[in-house]
Amino acid sequence: MMATKHKINIAVIGAGRIGKIHCENLASVLTGAELTAIADINLEAAQESAARCNVSTAVPDYHELLADPDIEAVVICSPTDTHAQIIQEAAAAGKHIFCEKPIDHELNMVDQALEAVEQAGVKLMVGFNRRFDPNFQKVHNMVAEGNIGEPHILHIISRDPAPPPMEYLEVSGGIFFDMTIHDFDMARYLMGSEVSEIYAAGAVKVDPKIGAIGDLDTVIITLRFANGAIGTIDNSRKAVYGYDQRVEVFGSEGMVTAYNPVSDTHIYSNQEGIHSALPLNFFLERYATSYMLEMREFIECLQNNTPPPVSGMDGRIPIVMGLAAKKSYQENRPVQLNEVDGSNSK
Amino acid sequence: MMATKHKINIAVIGAGRIGKIHCENLASVLTGAELTAIADINLEAAQESAARCNVSTAVPDYHELLADPDIEAVVICSPTDTHAQIIQEAAAAGKHIFCEKPIDHELNMVDQALEAVEQAGVKLMVGFNRRFDPNFQKVHNMVAEGNIGEPHILHIISRDPAPPPMEYLEVSGGIFFDMTIHDFDMARYLMGSEVSEIYAAGAVKVDPKIGAIGDLDTVIITLRFANGAIGTIDNSRKAVYGYDQRVEVFGSEGMVTAYNPVSDTHIYSNQEGIHSALPLNFFLERYATSYMLEMREFIECLQNNTPPPVSGMDGRIPIVMGLAAKKSYQENRPVQLNEVDGSNSK
Amino acid sequence: MMATKHKINIAVIGAGRIGKIHCENLASVLTGAELTAIADINLEAAQESAARCNVSTAVPDYHELLADPDIEAVVICSPTDTHAQIIQEAAAAGKHIFCEKPIDHELNMVDQALEAVEQAGVKLMVGFNRRFDPNFQKVHNMVAEGNIGEPHILHIISRDPAPPPMEYLEVSGGIFFDMTIHDFDMARYLMGSEVSEIYAAGAVKVDPKIGAIGDLDTVIITLRFANGAIGTIDNSRKAVYGYDQRVEVFGSEGMVTAYNPVSDTHIYSNQEGIHSALPLNFFLERYATSYMLEMREFIECLQNNTPPPVSGMDGRIPIVMGLAAKKSYQENRPVQLNEVDGSNSK
Amino acid sequence: MMATKHKINIAVIGAGRIGKIHCENLASVLTGAELTAIADINLEAAQESAARCNVSTAVPDYHELLADPDIEAVVICSPTDTHAQIIQEAAAAGKHIFCEKPIDHELNMVDQALEAVEQAGVKLMVGFNRRFDPNFQKVHNMVAEGNIGEPHILHIISRDPAPPPMEYLEVSGGIFFDMTIHDFDMARYLMGSEVSEIYAAGAVKVDPKIGAIGDLDTVIITLRFANGAIGTIDNSRKAVYGYDQRVEVFGSEGMVTAYNPVSDTHIYSNQEGIHSALPLNFFLERYATSYMLEMREFIECLQNNTPPPVSGMDGRIPIVMGLAAKKSYQENRPVQLNEVDGSNSK
Repeated sequence: MMATKHKINIAVIGAGRIGKIHCENLASVLTGAELTAIADINLEAAQESAARCNVSTAVPDYHELLADPDIEAVVICSPTDTHAQIIQEAAAAGKHIFCEKPIDHELNMVDQALEAVEQAGVKLMVGFNRRFDPNFQKVHNMVAEGNIGEPHILHIISRDPAPPPMEYLEVSGGIFFDMTIHDFDMARYLMGSEVSEIYAAGAVKVDPKIGAIGDLDTVIITLRFANGAIGTIDNSRKAVYGYDQRVEVFGSEGMVTAYNPVSDTHIYSNQEGIHSALPLNFFLERYATSYMLEMREFIECLQNNTPPPVSGMDGRIPIVMGLAAKKSYQENRPVQLNEVDGSNSK
Repeated sequence: MMATKHKINIAVIGAGRIGKIHCENLASVLTGAELTAIADINLEAAQESAARCNVSTAVPDYHELLADPDIEAVVICSPTDTHAQIIQEAAAAGKHIFCEKPIDHELNMVDQALEAVEQAGVKLMVGFNRRFDPNFQKVHNMVAEGNIGEPHILHIISRDPAPPPMEYLEVSGGIFFDMTIHDFDMARYLMGSEVSEIYAAGAVKVDPKIGAIGDLDTVIITLRFANGAIGTIDNSRKAVYGYDQRVEVFGSEGMVTAYNPVSDTHIYSNQEGIHSALPLNFFLERYATSYMLEMREFIECLQNNTPPPVSGMDGRIPIVMGLAAKKSYQENRPVQLNEVDGSNSK
Repeated sequence: MMATKHKINIAVIGAGRIGKIHCENLASVLTGAELTAIADINLEAAQESAARCNVSTAVPDYHELLADPDIEAVVICSPTDTHAQIIQEAAAAGKHIFCEKPIDHELNMVDQALEAVEQAGVKLMVGFNRRFDPNFQKVHNMVAEGNIGEPHILHIISRDPAPPPMEYLEVSGGIFFDMTIHDFDMARYLMGSEVSEIYAAGAVKVDPKIGAIGDLDTVIITLRFANGAIGTIDNSRKAVYGYDQRVEVFGSEGMVTAYNPVSDTHIYSNQEGIHSALPLNFFLERYATSYMLEMREFIECLQNNTPPPVSGMDGRIPIVMGLAAKKSYQENRPVQLNEVDGSNSK
Repeated sequence: MMATKHKINIAVIGAGRIGKIHCENLASVLTGAELTAIADINLEAAQESAARCNVSTAVPDYHELLADPDIEAVVICSPTDTHAQIIQEAAAAGKHIFCEKPIDHELNMVDQALEAVEQAGVKLMVGFNRRFDPNFQKVHNMVAEGNIGEPHILHIISRDPAPPPMEYLEVSGGIFFDMTIHDFDMARYLMGSEVSEIYAAGAVKVDPKIGAIGDLDTVIITLRFANGAIGTIDNSRKAVYGYDQRVEVFGSEGMVTAYNPVSDTHIYSNQEGIHSALPLNFFLERYATSYMLEMREFIECLQNNTPPPVSGMDGRIPIVMGLAAKKSYQENRPVQLNEVDGSNSK
């Protein structure tokens, strides 16, 4: 029956690490779309991806793609500081948009982009891929279906195997915008309730260089939800045992958690103890399925003309949460979201 | 070689639930002590325990026991509001003291008791039994031995299977003093560092009657340690799946956790999923071993004239933490411990 | 209500390792019995146990106890080659009997003992303690209650942490009678069906000295059950990671297994992997609860005049299975139980 | 550096379920090969796969592909009874060969095929894909590297979620050739020793129709290895909880097992117990990675001119084991492999 669906012509803008993943999924796994063009200011990168994916068009300037009437949708994988601009241009050109997160670190830039999308009447989906991880999705579904009764407490553990390079950290916007932003989205996704207040405690424990640029590498965030529930987010830039991504939702009728998928299922017993494999270590490996599934859902919402599963507002709110977390840490006090959001949206 | 050690003559004051446990361990498991007398204002309760334990002396008034020169040590299991008073009298009578926690909810009462102990030169051990749980002890030891490097983050999950009766809650001093106090002690024990600041978020999610008496039933506490580490405590009065007692310490070189012991080790697989047994459900069952082991260590510190493994100061500090948590919740801001502790003891 | 039950006067014959356990459970845990006397040809051993357990009578000759009209039941913990003789004398003296397994290695001796018990009309319970292990009991109950549908396949893994001393092995009757006998009983207990045919494969892999005395240290046994199900038993004299005791029953509607209880619940994650604690290492520790529970059930069957949960025939059949396994190994072919059991019992 | 390697031109013969998997891996994942043609007597099936994989040549008769000088290697995925014939023709045409297992059920047919391969000097790899499953590979590697010391005992559990259709079973050659054959190979792979003797016990427990065609659906096989170790294989045609594929190797210095990968990592705790996800349920899902990795190794052995990791002899021996198992079941006695293998190969 998928065969009877219209095949969506899609172009990818940005052929870096994440752009390549989307290109490969669009070219070889997802049958609902046709990957027709790739743009990157580094033309060679665009051409390389095009060659791998049997795509005929590779260009250095994405405006060429926006001008192509056959292209129905674009996947924006360019650097963060170009997202808001490209969203506006793509919307004006009538293209549907899948944009990697975050939309922007500045709230007014986000709002301009969302405004453009609304005016153009195109669809915008923001790439919070972890929502499509089968493990977290299962937790979400069990909470949403009432298996744990009313949710009371949420815990998110989200630790990287190692910090990114300092050059990256210097322009990342800080841990709240670069790392916690995923967990802010996950918190809303799992609890089905908005966060109203945030308290952020932080430390520099992994690398003093991170502190030297005014950033943190170890944070614990307390969330208060509109429905009265409470939650925590735990971030560290370095877990020596690998990529540690767990969630737990506790409620009146039970608890549901998701632990880390492992690289293999062996268990070794010797005189010292019982030993098993480490978690999948790299985000591209850990979240490979989620990247494929989010793109499939984007294609399906275009085919079926349904709302995208992650909206522009879903992209905006974690930015507000990041601003609140930053202010909370700076002033060492709980901060309400409406303190940092003039528009008081939602 | 234990045989060559002096056998300690011990009396138990208070023959309630916890007093009975200590009586039975002293009478039938612990070979280093002789249980010689039991006191309870309810004489029948004292006599019943005495009969079960082959103890000849059962009295209604503990002063009789304090006056007996053959008794070397007392185990105080009477109601909390009598602890400080009995400690002072026992110290004055030259008895060594094991006292159930908490010493008192009032800091000045605690200080008077500790002062009396110091002046008398007797030993005082406070009954934070969870330190002697083999699972948490293993976590403590692995942290202390450097297996996880420098500790960065602590999580304590501590949820009861069901709230106690309202009559109990009304005189309990509130969740921070009745329930979290164990976790305040556990935090210090596991991290090997003092807590300097506390932020408490709380809610009434389990039973509105608990809210009606001004108490909370669901709390998340953020701890900042003197060494720069951060931690959380998660308390709920009701986990439908049983008594949930877990800890996790994360550090620069690894992580160590302890999960819940289960009632049996079966695993059942059918079409619906894979199913296993619930955690041990009742604190007397979950912590049975810890009650025995703490008493054994008390006896040994008397036999060997070494400091008790849980000191009077270890009894005092969680009270200060409870005061800080309460103030933090009331004012919705992080509170430093020295704000609530005039003496600034540490 | 237990209080209204008649308290059973019990004597223990044999104050070795297993005798001591029964003495301690009878003296301090089990309220339904009164331990009144202990016999051991080594009088000192009897006296030592008596002192520990506050028992006034300690004698070198068990005949004294059989002659005592106040003693209602005896617990036989003497060496195996005395069991059948003492059972006959105790039965003749009208005492109820709990006898450690095996009754005897010779089938005719077993039959004489069972005959004496039947003629005297006393109760006999055989000490297959593993039936009372809460983990295996749960598996048994789930199978018996139909949770896995019709049982198809059974697996029993039963490995010791280290071989016993050679002096012990020389008189043990061989691995099938000393070690597998527990698993023969477990197989019948879990499957609720008799074994009709046995095929035994064996090897000497742990210690050539074991082979030198004509014994095996590594065996795999295939069982065919009367109901058509199939099973295996896996025995090794040495598992370096500890005492390995697992079972798995697979059926038409599911599977239930029991894994090893561990010494503590910690999990340690570092760069090398995820590490947890070893199984409880020693049978007295692993099966402590089961020893207590089997004795409690023995007492209750006397108090309530109900049949013992492990009958004399339950003691006899594993001997027949051991004979079949031995013959199977010697002739390298499957052997039916009625080939080695003239009486063709049951 | 892979880039400098010669790209192998490969054709696939047979576009059924397993042929499609190899086509997709060759077309989109494996960069070392070029999939150039697909043959199937059902031309439509060949054309459909060709379209999905951007392959220009689709033919009904594989002889066309054997005649094409540009094709260096063929992947044989046609029905089993054509394998031996196509191997001989492909070898005569100078093509390297990857052949799905089994080569044939008749030993003389296998031997003719292997003879043709040897004479032609081409490479032959047999598709025992489970060797390339990362979980079993880890177990193999740990055994091979000596982590468990000398292997003493092997257990393989291999149960299907449901029996295949009766039409399939009628021509499958029986459970030993259709299902156990994988486990025969796994036994040799994990233990690094040949099997010398087999004892097979079997039953019809899943479906009487399977018995009616003279087949079994539940079997337990005892293996004796040349190195003195012992092992078991457990097969059932129906595990209601899903595809159950586990192995355990026990040795002098430890044990290594591999448990089932699960569909997601959630754990749900409620009043009834703790519940987690079922194993991956279908062999294409469970072994997806292994199919890709075995083909990658085939390509690499052609590129590097090294011996294939699974040889023709590795394809032959499990057939001999199947013959021994069948004879053992029929005669209810252990059967040595050389009883059923005139050539006594290896």
